[in-house]
Amino acid sequence: VKIDEILKTKLTETILFLAQKGWSPGTGGNFSVVSNQSPLELFMSPSSIDKTQINQSQIITVDSDGKVIKGHGKSSAETAIHLVLCKKYGAKSVLHTHSIWNTSLSRKIKPFESITLSGYEMLKALGESTHDTVVEIPVFPNTQDIDFFAQMLDDEYEKYKSMKAFLMAGHGLYCWGDSIESAKRHTEAVEFLLECYGVENFIIKNF
Amino acid sequence: VKIDEILKTKLTETILFLAQKGWSPGTGGNFSVVSNQSPLELFMSPSSIDKTQINQSQIITVDSDGKVIKGHGKSSAETAIHLVLCKKYGAKSVLHTHSIWNTSLSRKIKPFESITLSGYEMLKALGESTHDTVVEIPVFPNTQDIDFFAQMLDDEYEKYKSMKAFLMAGHGLYCWGDSIESAKRHTEAVEFLLECYGVENFIIKNF
Amino acid sequence: VKIDEILKTKLTETILFLAQKGWSPGTGGNFSVVSNQSPLELFMSPSSIDKTQINQSQIITVDSDGKVIKGHGKSSAETAIHLVLCKKYGAKSVLHTHSIWNTSLSRKIKPFESITLSGYEMLKALGESTHDTVVEIPVFPNTQDIDFFAQMLDDEYEKYKSMKAFLMAGHGLYCWGDSIESAKRHTEAVEFLLECYGVENFIIKNF
Amino acid sequence: VKIDEILKTKLTETILFLAQKGWSPGTGGNFSVVSNQSPLELFMSPSSIDKTQINQSQIITVDSDGKVIKGHGKSSAETAIHLVLCKKYGAKSVLHTHSIWNTSLSRKIKPFESITLSGYEMLKALGESTHDTVVEIPVFPNTQDIDFFAQMLDDEYEKYKSMKAFLMAGHGLYCWGDSIESAKRHTEAVEFLLECYGVENFIIKNF
Repeated sequence: VKIDEILKTKLTETILFLAQKGWSPGTGGNFSVVSNQSPLELFMSPSSIDKTQINQSQIITVDSDGKVIKGHGKSSAETAIHLVLCKKYGAKSVLHTHSIWNTSLSRKIKPFESITLSGYEMLKALGESTHDTVVEIPVFPNTQDIDFFAQMLDDEYEKYKSMKAFLMAGHGLYCWGDSIESAKRHTEAVEFLLECYGVENFIIKNF
Repeated sequence: VKIDEILKTKLTETILFLAQKGWSPGTGGNFSVVSNQSPLELFMSPSSIDKTQINQSQIITVDSDGKVIKGHGKSSAETAIHLVLCKKYGAKSVLHTHSIWNTSLSRKIKPFESITLSGYEMLKALGESTHDTVVEIPVFPNTQDIDFFAQMLDDEYEKYKSMKAFLMAGHGLYCWGDSIESAKRHTEAVEFLLECYGVENFIIKNF
Repeated sequence: VKIDEILKTKLTETILFLAQKGWSPGTGGNFSVVSNQSPLELFMSPSSIDKTQINQSQIITVDSDGKVIKGHGKSSAETAIHLVLCKKYGAKSVLHTHSIWNTSLSRKIKPFESITLSGYEMLKALGESTHDTVVEIPVFPNTQDIDFFAQMLDDEYEKYKSMKAFLMAGHGLYCWGDSIESAKRHTEAVEFLLECYGVENFIIKNF
Repeated sequence: VKIDEILKTKLTETILFLAQKGWSPGTGGNFSVVSNQSPLELFMSPSSIDKTQINQSQIITVDSDGKVIKGHGKSSAETAIHLVLCKKYGAKSVLHTHSIWNTSLSRKIKPFESITLSGYEMLKALGESTHDTVVEIPVFPNTQDIDFFAQMLDDEYEKYKSMKAFLMAGHGLYCWGDSIESAKRHTEAVEFLLECYGVENFIIKNF
């Protein structure tokens, strides 16, 4: 129980941090951490609440079907995405943000193409051992049929298993990790890299 | 009375949040919530105060003619806009912000034309059920004759009844909702969408 | 004495607010309020301190020659500018900020030309009665001979008496008012307007 | 011992300040202050921790070979850079930040060329006596062989001894000073100047 409380505190503090950055406006975004591995259960932010004001008592628990089994509040429509990332992609924590740059860039990429990040020291925050590498962030088309989308992530695991994060076009960014700390590190790193990508390609262009 | 205090606290916290974002500089902006439906009365920020330092005791009460009936301080010149939104457009709370992007974009649109927002997940924060929709944000010319402008909103209700928010050119954004929470959600969502619109159309342009 | 303490508190809080905005980086900027009219004395931030950490006990008092008559610390090299604004231009408080946009724009304007601001509601925060007006922000060349510059402001009073604020090229912005509150309002308004000016002219350009 | 605690407090507060600015995302960045001159010892942020949440008890002590001699945690891979700056370039404190503008600009400059900063009042925060001067910020290629890079800085001291700061391409900024306070002032000044440089050259361009 005490470990659960620590986990909820960490999740709440992480949500407040990301919301304070402006990456969760208009009650957008959803955030989870695995609270039990078998059967799979997640602590998760409920839908439609102001993430800049979340407190620990609002965290809900969802089961492996996305049903709320503890706490008050609705689970997010996007719970199925969190679940497939935990079941299939090894995630212990999933963070979904809406930032100006992740949203704007995602609308300019053709569906199923990706943003190529290369040569950045910050790639090491994603687990790479050197800046001299290439990381692709796929951009999937947005949909209101989240179950369909989650099923696609499940079906196409072999194709996408090495991805570090993905964008949904006009929607936002999903990052994850093997702990809240690493999911947060990945989120900060990808948001940073996407903004650099935007500044370099669309503001600086050719020196 | 207790409900009134809770409402004033919420209004004050919302104003501080928006001011902290930099959306209410130079004592700009004004903010209200319906405190009584019949006769119509609003709790409202007084004119000419620093919104980053507002406290609850500064909230004034105005009646349906815009007269201050409780509290110290002048009502804003723009109270008539708040009142017509509450009387005719179903608003229970009205938030008026000045941001860099809402001001700059509003000056580049022809009067009475609109900014078209489409394909964003964040449109769901405005009450849409899907991203695959179109929301128009009308841009009205600015005026110092606020009574005239408020009368126009009254007269043209049939034309504008479905709008979610509007801009006044070179002036700022009006958002509203059926509660402070929803008005805040709409404000955050529209500010986010306008900034995305600016970044996509004027920084990224063609990928 | 009590009024003096209130004034020092207000000055300190205003400096912290502006520094928090990022408008006083690298110990830059200086800030004053008239503490005595005759003989003229100013409360002022000392030179070379970190403005994000200033506390009230660090505020110095300077006389009408710029000599420190109370408190520890050196007076800023730019004290003479504060003094001429108080002696000749009716200032009771002078705030000097360094922001990205005020610095960058000031380097692109020809010396002694100005930035023309027109059509903004925010011009009312500078004391204008309507948005439908024109405010010119002159840009003076930078110099290390501050006495020379202050003398110029003194000599050319008839030419510049209606200015609301000015820029020094590659250096920063001076705003003032008849109280700390109005000087702060002017600073926030001009910083906002300069950023809008930049976004409209150099990012949005033609719609 | 008491002086050590004060130094650790100052270092911790400086790290929190820089992290709060967003200049140390994804656990990036590393920060040190000389705690003993002979033999040389540094207080330093450990590797791989979230800099927005660092507390004083996490500060480690490293010796002149980069070995951790006090505290828990790993020393940063880049400790060798801190050490050569302290041994050869007179640094008493070294601050290494990752910002959008320092990273993006550094990728657009040819290796071993530099960014030329001239005409800014803010150059005085770097120890210059006038704005009418030229400061070059060299851009070195990034490498994972930090010992090699540190040795280059050692070998090429005569060539680089007057530099105030340097960039590593796609990696970040190194600033230093003869105290934590001056290293912080230099960091704030260079970050400010690089952002002005970006805005002037790639957003404003020709007026």
